[in-house]
Amino acid sequence: MAARGLMIQDIQGESTRMVGLAGDTSMLSEEAILRHECVERVMRVSEPYKLAGRRFHPQDTVVEATEAARIGGGHFAVMAGPCSVESEEQILSIARDVKHSGAHFLRGGAFKPRSSPYAFQGLGLDGLEMMKIAREKTGLPIVTEIMSQEYCEIFARDVDVIQVGARNMQNFPLLREVGALGKPVLLKRGLSCSIDELLQAADYVLVGGKSPVILCERGIRTFETATRNTLDLSAVPVLKKKSHLPVVIDPSHGTGHWDLVYPMALAAVAAGADGLIIEVHNQPERALCDGQQSITPFLFDRLMRKIGQLRTVLAENL
Amino acid sequence: MAARGLMIQDIQGESTRMVGLAGDTSMLSEEAILRHECVERVMRVSEPYKLAGRRFHPQDTVVEATEAARIGGGHFAVMAGPCSVESEEQILSIARDVKHSGAHFLRGGAFKPRSSPYAFQGLGLDGLEMMKIAREKTGLPIVTEIMSQEYCEIFARDVDVIQVGARNMQNFPLLREVGALGKPVLLKRGLSCSIDELLQAADYVLVGGKSPVILCERGIRTFETATRNTLDLSAVPVLKKKSHLPVVIDPSHGTGHWDLVYPMALAAVAAGADGLIIEVHNQPERALCDGQQSITPFLFDRLMRKIGQLRTVLAENL
Amino acid sequence: MAARGLMIQDIQGESTRMVGLAGDTSMLSEEAILRHECVERVMRVSEPYKLAGRRFHPQDTVVEATEAARIGGGHFAVMAGPCSVESEEQILSIARDVKHSGAHFLRGGAFKPRSSPYAFQGLGLDGLEMMKIAREKTGLPIVTEIMSQEYCEIFARDVDVIQVGARNMQNFPLLREVGALGKPVLLKRGLSCSIDELLQAADYVLVGGKSPVILCERGIRTFETATRNTLDLSAVPVLKKKSHLPVVIDPSHGTGHWDLVYPMALAAVAAGADGLIIEVHNQPERALCDGQQSITPFLFDRLMRKIGQLRTVLAENL
Amino acid sequence: MAARGLMIQDIQGESTRMVGLAGDTSMLSEEAILRHECVERVMRVSEPYKLAGRRFHPQDTVVEATEAARIGGGHFAVMAGPCSVESEEQILSIARDVKHSGAHFLRGGAFKPRSSPYAFQGLGLDGLEMMKIAREKTGLPIVTEIMSQEYCEIFARDVDVIQVGARNMQNFPLLREVGALGKPVLLKRGLSCSIDELLQAADYVLVGGKSPVILCERGIRTFETATRNTLDLSAVPVLKKKSHLPVVIDPSHGTGHWDLVYPMALAAVAAGADGLIIEVHNQPERALCDGQQSITPFLFDRLMRKIGQLRTVLAENL
Repeated sequence: MAARGLMIQDIQGESTRMVGLAGDTSMLSEEAILRHECVERVMRVSEPYKLAGRRFHPQDTVVEATEAARIGGGHFAVMAGPCSVESEEQILSIARDVKHSGAHFLRGGAFKPRSSPYAFQGLGLDGLEMMKIAREKTGLPIVTEIMSQEYCEIFARDVDVIQVGARNMQNFPLLREVGALGKPVLLKRGLSCSIDELLQAADYVLVGGKSPVILCERGIRTFETATRNTLDLSAVPVLKKKSHLPVVIDPSHGTGHWDLVYPMALAAVAAGADGLIIEVHNQPERALCDGQQSITPFLFDRLMRKIGQLRTVLAENL
Repeated sequence: MAARGLMIQDIQGESTRMVGLAGDTSMLSEEAILRHECVERVMRVSEPYKLAGRRFHPQDTVVEATEAARIGGGHFAVMAGPCSVESEEQILSIARDVKHSGAHFLRGGAFKPRSSPYAFQGLGLDGLEMMKIAREKTGLPIVTEIMSQEYCEIFARDVDVIQVGARNMQNFPLLREVGALGKPVLLKRGLSCSIDELLQAADYVLVGGKSPVILCERGIRTFETATRNTLDLSAVPVLKKKSHLPVVIDPSHGTGHWDLVYPMALAAVAAGADGLIIEVHNQPERALCDGQQSITPFLFDRLMRKIGQLRTVLAENL
Repeated sequence: MAARGLMIQDIQGESTRMVGLAGDTSMLSEEAILRHECVERVMRVSEPYKLAGRRFHPQDTVVEATEAARIGGGHFAVMAGPCSVESEEQILSIARDVKHSGAHFLRGGAFKPRSSPYAFQGLGLDGLEMMKIAREKTGLPIVTEIMSQEYCEIFARDVDVIQVGARNMQNFPLLREVGALGKPVLLKRGLSCSIDELLQAADYVLVGGKSPVILCERGIRTFETATRNTLDLSAVPVLKKKSHLPVVIDPSHGTGHWDLVYPMALAAVAAGADGLIIEVHNQPERALCDGQQSITPFLFDRLMRKIGQLRTVLAENL
Repeated sequence: MAARGLMIQDIQGESTRMVGLAGDTSMLSEEAILRHECVERVMRVSEPYKLAGRRFHPQDTVVEATEAARIGGGHFAVMAGPCSVESEEQILSIARDVKHSGAHFLRGGAFKPRSSPYAFQGLGLDGLEMMKIAREKTGLPIVTEIMSQEYCEIFARDVDVIQVGARNMQNFPLLREVGALGKPVLLKRGLSCSIDELLQAADYVLVGGKSPVILCERGIRTFETATRNTLDLSAVPVLKKKSHLPVVIDPSHGTGHWDLVYPMALAAVAAGADGLIIEVHNQPERALCDGQQSITPFLFDRLMRKIGQLRTVLAENL
């Protein structure tokens, strides 16, 4: 250890001996030490991530897709749109609606990760083309999920914010590749991933040195079944403390019920989130995917107005 | 089944046969049916609780301790005070501070449930006496936790809101007894209890017909360790939909860190909570219990003012 | 700290300073230290329990109800019987059956903790009387659950092993009282309680200095719904390493399905458990409680024989 | 619905109406129905998977790598080797040792998925070459993890059993591609994936029609921290009931501690597992990865002998 430039210090208790290591321990694996028979436990004092951490990057990162679509460091942004793109008409209609209500990004799924191979898997590249048309007509930058490295080139060219979904949060080769594309990455927290693991996954993207990262909490898996997932809203202030990256909340996947989206979106704003990603569908009862958690453009409009009021009051002096 | 006045209907699929039962199935145990070898699964369509449910009690319940301390049905209330009562001076000082900032109830622990038998267990009845003095001097009704049936009589006489803690949420004999005392019961959700189980526990209190119930979400246990528990804020709109009872959020236990209390308290208000229970300590660094999750009277004061602003804007028309 | 006789040592890193405390830290609360603003984290090196731990009590504890019913330190014991006592005839019939197959204890519920106040709550003291009759006729010592302090005297007199159920694992006043009764206590792990908390709960009983403790793993609550709970069998070797107390597995509650009881009981034996507690019912399809997880005396008999074979081979030299 | 050839049946309760659908509902998404405002809940009666299910494939599947390495349908197999291949010398030495003790497959990691980008990531293709040499010298077929579609061709040519790790269990494009390769796939359960999701993931592989699947339980993520994960051993009998595919247990990742591997491996055998995958390292204290959960060849040898004894007694008539 001394050979690695680490300072070693020793504390001798009655029944236990404690050894402290100080210096750059980021390259040291806890396992490497645990192997030794005399070692009972290894406790890491410093964080296991670096680039995503606030320690060496105290100021907030602002991620900018267009001038009107910035997020972080005081810029609040809403990404809205259908779970999956179903037709040019559908995506256009929704895009116009959400733009009118003040959304900053158009979200929509072209490639859909589904638990069952028999479920609708998205329109693929055709869906992406439809999103591009919607972007052209509305000016909204587009956010869509990448599921495989093979589409990296296309996404780098055509997409404004590349989403890495919860199921791929620890697909490390994919993280590395999107990290080299130079486009903002919306990184969703895995269903059973800790906050520290999310930040380590962000480091996988950030080591590429090219793509900024937006973190997204979208619900974790717990024993509770009244909601589809358990939206961990405390992750907002925790992430803001640990990291300089913008934090976005997904109340649609986080709850799984359209009538919980409105209150939880407001709660996310009050907790200090930098943005929201919300499923909006013009005909939720006919959506090919996740209709039960989509809100209508009408409700979205009301939500956006209430968010505006809320943000004003949150910024006010006491 | 027909003998119990239930209607039976049969659906024959290719490989499975489905039998539906309609009528009052609340007395029917799912297990009673599962035992039969030909039964693969039993799925309950109606809720397992009754008195706590909104189905037969659509209007919100308002729980009233004093005229100034009402909760539910549009009345918002904040319960504030130290984790544990430590001295008359301490509880009085904090009581005056939180009253001045607008708190509606004084909370404080006299009997403390601690994981370790070697930890400080509270001042017991002496602590309760100190709370009574604080009530006398400030007019704030008092909320404190009951840990054992043996104190029911004293609590019924001396306490304004009787708290049943998370660890006792399924201590059914205790629930029954506090249900007979005629004092409001603040029922905290168990660390691994589902929302449906919380409402069933409320039914245990409500069958006594005397004590109204206030529900409290205070964090559930998950894999995440960045926070002490995972505050399940979605429980607010879910509970408001399922039940007519007031819902209170405890951001202190829910997060375990004082600096998360402020944002999560605001988030709870935005999510639609009827009230908050917050740990406030005048010298958190010297608290005998839970100091790390207590906020100072100064921060509490700021929080109360921000909550006021927030509630105004939430109530505004769009 | 120095005043408390603790040795303090300091490790200064680049961005973090680490302070080690050596000596008897069991009375020190982690919170007490966390309150200080300069403290970011507190990590406990030594265990939070004492009496239940192996550190100062290296040899296995043997708990003895009768000469034929010993458990721990190489003595293996099976507790078998119905979830709830339903009639004298039922309990007698089952008691005779399980005794004939080699069970060491008769288990049966007189007081039943049920999530719903509308479910069958057990026969109470009448049920206990029936168990005593079964004990008299078969010689099997009886194990039954206590739900409230008010019955402590009766249980101390009439019951051979007093069970504290999962829902009461952190009912601390109850733990203290059963710890004074001088009868063995079967302490079930709470659904969301960690292994360390189980051992701290054991300490609550053991500080009384009178009642020995048998630990019981009966499934924890996770996201998986294919089983009623997730049986944490690894808890067996973990507990055997950390503690000198006997460890019993409950495959009935742990899985919730009768057809999983046989394989998981064998697995528990192979993992090194000191005993099993198993629900056996002569007419599972008519049981008033938990019929779906009860096995028949016929299957229990086969299980006992296979366990015998298994234990022989596990004890054989390699 | 009727248009899709489904039979519809209606059950009218007092406050709820229940509608049953019988026929091939596998193409029907629950969401598609939930979207309708009048629908409160959708409950699936039949399983969400098909090819992996036992319903239409009652007999056990036997997966065969070589004549000596078959698994399922009564054939028990052990996969042993280091977490990661470190050198030719290392993998050869371990391969010889585990072969000598009776292992059927050599496992070893060439590509390692690590939470941190700063941790050792495996030797990659060089590691694979070393495994091939070890196969040549020992005759043991090799099992190694694929992390990215880009290596599919190489793995199809060089590897005997292609492992898909827990983090990639829902990397659906990867599942589809390995399903087309014609080599057995060892599919590990994701840390927060349910048993039903594991079987749906198996369906993603099986729809390719070419690659048989071996299921692997390796621990799920829960609140318990005494073990690295919670090994869900009940998954063995549950999976054997629901599916015809072989089930393998990984006690190394499942527990994270070398001294828990021996008892939990025996427990897995007793629970009815078709095989085990175990980390063995000749110098655990110098392993580049997961040394703390690796056992030595000496302990592995003892384990294999005890497993042999155990399997004999499990197969014996009662």
